[in-house]
Amino acid sequence: GDGRMGVVFNDAAQDKLRLDSRARVRFTLSGETDTGMAFGGWFRAQTAPDSASGNMGTGGANVFISGDFGRLSFGDVAGAAQASVGDLHGIGLTGLGFLNENTYFQRDFNGGILNSGGTNALYTYSFDGFTVHASLGQLNVRDGNNDRVEMGSIGARYEFDGFAIGAGYELANIGGDNFGHVALGGEANIDMFSVRATIGRLVQDARGTNTSDHQIGLSGSADIDDITVSAFARRDFARDVHVGAGASYSLGGGASIVGGVRYTSFDAGGGQTVADFGVSFSF
Amino acid sequence: GDGRMGVVFNDAAQDKLRLDSRARVRFTLSGETDTGMAFGGWFRAQTAPDSASGNMGTGGANVFISGDFGRLSFGDVAGAAQASVGDLHGIGLTGLGFLNENTYFQRDFNGGILNSGGTNALYTYSFDGFTVHASLGQLNVRDGNNDRVEMGSIGARYEFDGFAIGAGYELANIGGDNFGHVALGGEANIDMFSVRATIGRLVQDARGTNTSDHQIGLSGSADIDDITVSAFARRDFARDVHVGAGASYSLGGGASIVGGVRYTSFDAGGGQTVADFGVSFSF
Amino acid sequence: GDGRMGVVFNDAAQDKLRLDSRARVRFTLSGETDTGMAFGGWFRAQTAPDSASGNMGTGGANVFISGDFGRLSFGDVAGAAQASVGDLHGIGLTGLGFLNENTYFQRDFNGGILNSGGTNALYTYSFDGFTVHASLGQLNVRDGNNDRVEMGSIGARYEFDGFAIGAGYELANIGGDNFGHVALGGEANIDMFSVRATIGRLVQDARGTNTSDHQIGLSGSADIDDITVSAFARRDFARDVHVGAGASYSLGGGASIVGGVRYTSFDAGGGQTVADFGVSFSF
Repeated sequence: GDGRMGVVFNDAAQDKLRLDSRARVRFTLSGETDTGMAFGGWFRAQTAPDSASGNMGTGGANVFISGDFGRLSFGDVAGAAQASVGDLHGIGLTGLGFLNENTYFQRDFNGGILNSGGTNALYTYSFDGFTVHASLGQLNVRDGNNDRVEMGSIGARYEFDGFAIGAGYELANIGGDNFGHVALGGEANIDMFSVRATIGRLVQDARGTNTSDHQIGLSGSADIDDITVSAFARRDFARDVHVGAGASYSLGGGASIVGGVRYTSFDAGGGQTVADFGVSFSF
Repeated sequence: GDGRMGVVFNDAAQDKLRLDSRARVRFTLSGETDTGMAFGGWFRAQTAPDSASGNMGTGGANVFISGDFGRLSFGDVAGAAQASVGDLHGIGLTGLGFLNENTYFQRDFNGGILNSGGTNALYTYSFDGFTVHASLGQLNVRDGNNDRVEMGSIGARYEFDGFAIGAGYELANIGGDNFGHVALGGEANIDMFSVRATIGRLVQDARGTNTSDHQIGLSGSADIDDITVSAFARRDFARDVHVGAGASYSLGGGASIVGGVRYTSFDAGGGQTVADFGVSFSF
Repeated sequence: GDGRMGVVFNDAAQDKLRLDSRARVRFTLSGETDTGMAFGGWFRAQTAPDSASGNMGTGGANVFISGDFGRLSFGDVAGAAQASVGDLHGIGLTGLGFLNENTYFQRDFNGGILNSGGTNALYTYSFDGFTVHASLGQLNVRDGNNDRVEMGSIGARYEFDGFAIGAGYELANIGGDNFGHVALGGEANIDMFSVRATIGRLVQDARGTNTSDHQIGLSGSADIDDITVSAFARRDFARDVHVGAGASYSLGGGASIVGGVRYTSFDAGGGQTVADFGVSFSF
């Protein structure tokens, strides 16, 4: 499980400062067949006192089976492009909106821009330094206009000696309109430093809902003794630019003092500053 | 806990094929008094990414206390008729609508046709091969018309040498209107074969909402090494006829490949075919 | 975890008698930093078949960190006045409305009269027999009229040789209107007897929504072998008077037979009787 307690500042809100806390438990299930295939799943039960309902939420729930044939996951899983290219380094106690995450048609935690969530399927096969991914969004989903949404993705990632490069292609068809997204990313891990760069290009955007057909981002992280500092900068398909920085100081035993700040400059003008500070726990 | 991943086909839906996955944990609580009475309870936390709310659901939650006096259960428990007569053999990865289950006024998993769910009470006493059941629906429930719903049930089951016969009687009064249901069932387990037959007759149906006053069903199951095959046929109170068949192949360690198909022929004309296929896990 | 099963009577309801059951699990998380500070949290997952949604609810979720500096808790925690003065002895299987609990502006389980719930913060420091508390309600909450709600509390409690006295002061500002509440309480534990008295006075009540500016209560409890009897009487800020009594008989192993009755005499005239009886479990 994990937990956190702290304060969150948002200068775009009417009421800028809020207390924040959360306690969360992760249930992990695993087993093995007689022929040595692994299977399992996990989901999280969480509770945040500020949630309106007081109910427990779940996120990332998935099940998998893996063996010589690779690994097949069902549930709230990443798309192949996301699994191959990934995201920038994250910051802060609460994620500060998770704007270090790239825009994908389909991604985990129900966050894809063209995928309304639900059960997705991801197949992964690894050999030598290569990992190949193929994914399928939930079949026959309907969007708000009752248009049928079909979505799939392929991608590959190659890792060698601290370096990694990944590429992915996402394809969607919504009510007959085609959407395509090519994503590329690279990562280098040298001593205590980690650097990532990612770029995405919309090769088809039938409805022209995106201002730009490029997203691009750069991030880095450094571990110096008990301190980790991270920063990212990203421009998204709306031409909004997000810049963030954060630091974490480990108290040992799973507790850390964590803080971060993120600034967004909107293409339409104006900006937003969000910050947080507190203690995070992992159990 | 348990889990599953697979595909579901439904030819009556606008969009026929869907991916399906689920992960679930069961919490079991138990204790013993100083005088040796057992008490406990259980409920399940489950998560299915396709659920609209993203919240965790629960099903079958109940608590019990048992001793020389028998066993008293409160919560989402079976009625006495269901506990005595039971259901037909089930099929498939997802249950395919659970149409192998007989219609009772009151049953577990909030599924009774006259019971809106809630806390029910079930008393069970066993001696020699006999098991006697008595149950009470939640008191003073109101239905959608604000009519008071009162419901109770009695039943008995006798088991001997692989054979079992059961009988139950359900009685309900809704806003002064009387409903009665007599159910009978038999089961035989011989070597790797299991056969069940059940019949139900409405002896009172004050509102005449059921087309027929009979339900009848037959089912069988066979275990052959790692393979289990099951099938059922049932006609319900609406004169709809349901036929289903399924098979399961155990991979060991709690994982099985499971598939099933169910066809319903509606009394009003037309039919529906539902099928599923995938992997089920138990942990 | 814990559970309960029984019946509840309420003579003010259209339908007076109901069955009641519940099963509940408590998740407790804990850790320790390298320098010996403790941290952790807990929340409960519960399920009651009569809940409309069938979802799991949570209550009391909180996280904390503690060390030489004292203890800081975030989440659904008590206010400082509640932590210092406390409540009267409770009765019954289900709490019978928990009217043994004093009225505070802010209290745990989201029950404060001026606090809409959410993440609160409570700081506690203990030395010798003294415990000092300071608390802050969630910052920048808005009430139903979109007025900003600010709330804080301080208090202290001194314990010596079975006796304890506590005092607290709660302060709230809602849209510019001021509210103040001073609470005092005492407790004595002598052999198998426990007695508590509490009093609260509204020193500011800008909106005059309370009929009276006093609340006062007295309660007692006695443990005699396996039997515990408890009773309380309390007059609240609405001049309503609540009287309750209950008893519990331990079966050992965490199971008890529990019953209680509570009568309320309303200032506006009339009364209400609520009673319950059943078995409670703790696991």
